[in-house]
Amino acid sequence: MDDTVTDSSTGSERTVAQVGEFDVIARAVADRVQPPSTIVGPGDDAAVVAASDGRIAASTDMLVHGRHFRLDWSSPIQIGRKSIAQNGADIAAMGAQCSGFLVSLGCPADTPVSVTDGLNEGMWLEAVAAGSAIVGGDVVQSPELVISITALGDLQGRAPVLRSGARAGDVIAYAGRLGWSAAGLALLLGDRDRTGHDAVVDAHRVPVPPYRAGIDAAEAGATSLTDVSDGLLADLGHIADASGVLLDVDPDLLDIPVEVRSAATLMGHDPLDWVLTGGEDHALVGTFPDTAGVPRGWTVIGRVQHGGDGQSPRVTVGGRPHSGRSGWSSFEGE
Amino acid sequence: MDDTVTDSSTGSERTVAQVGEFDVIARAVADRVQPPSTIVGPGDDAAVVAASDGRIAASTDMLVHGRHFRLDWSSPIQIGRKSIAQNGADIAAMGAQCSGFLVSLGCPADTPVSVTDGLNEGMWLEAVAAGSAIVGGDVVQSPELVISITALGDLQGRAPVLRSGARAGDVIAYAGRLGWSAAGLALLLGDRDRTGHDAVVDAHRVPVPPYRAGIDAAEAGATSLTDVSDGLLADLGHIADASGVLLDVDPDLLDIPVEVRSAATLMGHDPLDWVLTGGEDHALVGTFPDTAGVPRGWTVIGRVQHGGDGQSPRVTVGGRPHSGRSGWSSFEGE
Repeated sequence: MDDTVTDSSTGSERTVAQVGEFDVIARAVADRVQPPSTIVGPGDDAAVVAASDGRIAASTDMLVHGRHFRLDWSSPIQIGRKSIAQNGADIAAMGAQCSGFLVSLGCPADTPVSVTDGLNEGMWLEAVAAGSAIVGGDVVQSPELVISITALGDLQGRAPVLRSGARAGDVIAYAGRLGWSAAGLALLLGDRDRTGHDAVVDAHRVPVPPYRAGIDAAEAGATSLTDVSDGLLADLGHIADASGVLLDVDPDLLDIPVEVRSAATLMGHDPLDWVLTGGEDHALVGTFPDTAGVPRGWTVIGRVQHGGDGQSPRVTVGGRPHSGRSGWSSFEGE
Repeated sequence: MDDTVTDSSTGSERTVAQVGEFDVIARAVADRVQPPSTIVGPGDDAAVVAASDGRIAASTDMLVHGRHFRLDWSSPIQIGRKSIAQNGADIAAMGAQCSGFLVSLGCPADTPVSVTDGLNEGMWLEAVAAGSAIVGGDVVQSPELVISITALGDLQGRAPVLRSGARAGDVIAYAGRLGWSAAGLALLLGDRDRTGHDAVVDAHRVPVPPYRAGIDAAEAGATSLTDVSDGLLADLGHIADASGVLLDVDPDLLDIPVEVRSAATLMGHDPLDWVLTGGEDHALVGTFPDTAGVPRGWTVIGRVQHGGDGQSPRVTVGGRPHSGRSGWSSFEGE
């Protein structure tokens, strides 16, 4: 493995085609330390990871350049972090501890090695932030940069917290950020001066899921749990559907941070709309039997009501349907 | 969920953009039965799968249209089967039983729903053939059809069989098919009449990994094991490198099936070259302490020799280097 990413004879950046699949992988795994839970790490036909209570949680998501990230908006390290964060959040949303990530990377042959190195560095940084590691992966050629991640999680003896357990009378609470990523995206899409708004732009580039909050929620007896990938109302809709209940969010309980409010003023947007419908922050939202049982770090924002009569909408804001769009769809705008 | 894939007003095929991500997933999971090892199936933030001995084997691979499969060569069902088979073979190559597959599907917005339905049908067929199920997944928009699979495996109390355990004096043996897929690919690439050669063409479209043979090998005390994805010599090279040994294949022990021989005659190719260097059959190859211990279904094809002096090549055929190319590379031809 060559430590440089520059061709010494031409001074130009070396590409993945020049160094080859095996060197890209060798660069990704070099000098990485696996945690004790990794029984077999990268380099064999499969990784082997401890599953301490005889069960493993597993979730997968694919990110495509131009659709889920852009190299002109984010550095490879940021994209790597984001790809792990959004998958790790799914594990946290089961009340599990991340115990390993598998990475499939598809990239054009002319992708600079500095890009794959940056992606791998970001993935490792975020995997460690989630208390875990990259345990295996694959690199192939593809016409567009594609990152597919599978996150593994250890339930550590806890019952998985599903979307289907919310009951009338429960309180709704969230942990993490809401509206930050949407604010950052609006700034990136707009043509205003972004000076002073780095926090929301960075939040769009690298979400900060509250990994530990998922475990806290499970230990506190959360009755349902999911992560906010599509938007608060859209993801609450998944809990409402799975649980057969109606979820009412009290907008007065939603504290809108100054960073989101300030970006909204700049862009002439309603900040509450970003908080209610903005995706990709990977906050956690769930339900608990009562306010007293909501753990530290979680904020109560509403209440679960009876909703078994198939009525629509299943999610309301202050007792009424929200008039804006409810969140992200994979195939919108086609 | 609509049961038809045709727009009743226009008669044209409906696309994934028309039905949306959630309907594509709903179609994929409808009426599927999960095995008892699936504790939480599709529909929540993560799947939860039993890991009976407190460990899970996990492997991931990405397949890209035009690179790893072609819709003009294979049906969606065949492509679905192939994508699961090549990942399931990695689990078998650890001596593990497949216990769940996660699927990430990236597809253009104008992909007909009949294509995603076919892919999902094929993936389910092969997952069941491997004794398992599809336990979770994701559908996103991408400019090219991309399939990323993660396979999970249960070691059922056995030690994982690594690539690093081959020792001088061991015998080399394989199970499954060698050269079939390469013969089929040559026929698909060529312009000869393929009549009578369906078996090898089908073998290229849908590999038939000997899943059970991996478990048999582990139980018989195999010292190393891998699957033949890049070509017999290339994959033996991985065992040689990991084990620090030299592997010598005796060409007289390689039985060349009539199907491969016949295709070679048609194409004017050396059939032994396909057997030695053809990838994608996902046979299993490994090493055993002695011939007597090689399980039923495995064929002895050579012997492990001392090779700790860093000499090259690490794999020989009849004591000599093989003169042809040794196998598949992800970024070749760029």
